[in-house]
Amino acid sequence: MKSRRHSDHEPGRFAYEGIDRVMHEKARLSVMTSLVTRPEGLLFGELKQLCGLTDGNLSRHLDVLRDAGLVEIWKGFEGRRPQTLCRLTSDGRRRFVEYLEELEKVVKDALPKATKRPERLPSLPPGWMPAES
Amino acid sequence: MKSRRHSDHEPGRFAYEGIDRVMHEKARLSVMTSLVTRPEGLLFGELKQLCGLTDGNLSRHLDVLRDAGLVEIWKGFEGRRPQTLCRLTSDGRRRFVEYLEELEKVVKDALPKATKRPERLPSLPPGWMPAES
Repeated sequence: MKSRRHSDHEPGRFAYEGIDRVMHEKARLSVMTSLVTRPEGLLFGELKQLCGLTDGNLSRHLDVLRDAGLVEIWKGFEGRRPQTLCRLTSDGRRRFVEYLEELEKVVKDALPKATKRPERLPSLPPGWMPAES
Repeated sequence: MKSRRHSDHEPGRFAYEGIDRVMHEKARLSVMTSLVTRPEGLLFGELKQLCGLTDGNLSRHLDVLRDAGLVEIWKGFEGRRPQTLCRLTSDGRRRFVEYLEELEKVVKDALPKATKRPERLPSLPPGWMPAES
C-alpha cells in the first residue's frame, strides 16, 4: 500500500464538499437539468414529462428547490387556462454550475480508474475474513 | 416556446434512469470514489480520512453499500492490530462505471447550457404572479 500517489492521499481528497445535497437528489437533478435548458421556464406539465415524474413528486421536489432559492414558481394563464411556470433563479443557475463542476470532478477522478482496472480482485493475505453483517 | 430542439423534448429526456440512488448520495459517492482508486482495498481509517467522515457515518454508509453488493468488508490483522479492510466488489466496480457514465451525461447535458446563458432572466408576460408558498 505504498505506491499510492500523494495527491490521492490527502485528508478529504474525495469528500467533494461542493456537492449540494439539495441538488444531489435524482429527481431534483432531473428538474434542474430540464430547467437549465430553458431559461424562459417550463410549464409544470412539460417539466413533469421531461423528468418522468408524477404530479405529486414534482410538486414536492419543486417546493424543496424553491425553498432553497434555486427555482421560481409563477402562476398565470395561457389563453383561459391556468398554468404554472417554473424556472431557475439567477442564483440557482450559478449554484447549479458550481454543483455540476464538482460532479465533473468526481467523473474525472473515478471513471478512468473504474474502467481501466482488471475485473478480477486481488486475493487477501491469509487470515482475513469477511465481516459479519 | 417553439424553438426547442426535438431531442430535448422527448418524454423522460432528463429522467436519468441510470442514476442508482444507493450510489447517488454524497457520502457514499465519496466512499465509492475512494475505493475505486484502490482495487486492493482501503483500511477503515484511511477511508474515513479520504472521505472526511466520522466513524459512525462511514459505518452506516458502508453497511448500505455492502447490502447492495457494491462493497466487501474484511476483518483481519496488520501485525497484532485488528483492522477492517473495505474494497469494491467486481459487480460494484461495473455498476459504478454505469453510474459514472450517467453522471457524465448529466454534466454534458447541463454544464454547457448553464455556463453559456446570460445571468439576467427574461421577464414574464403581464398577468403572471409568483406562486404562494
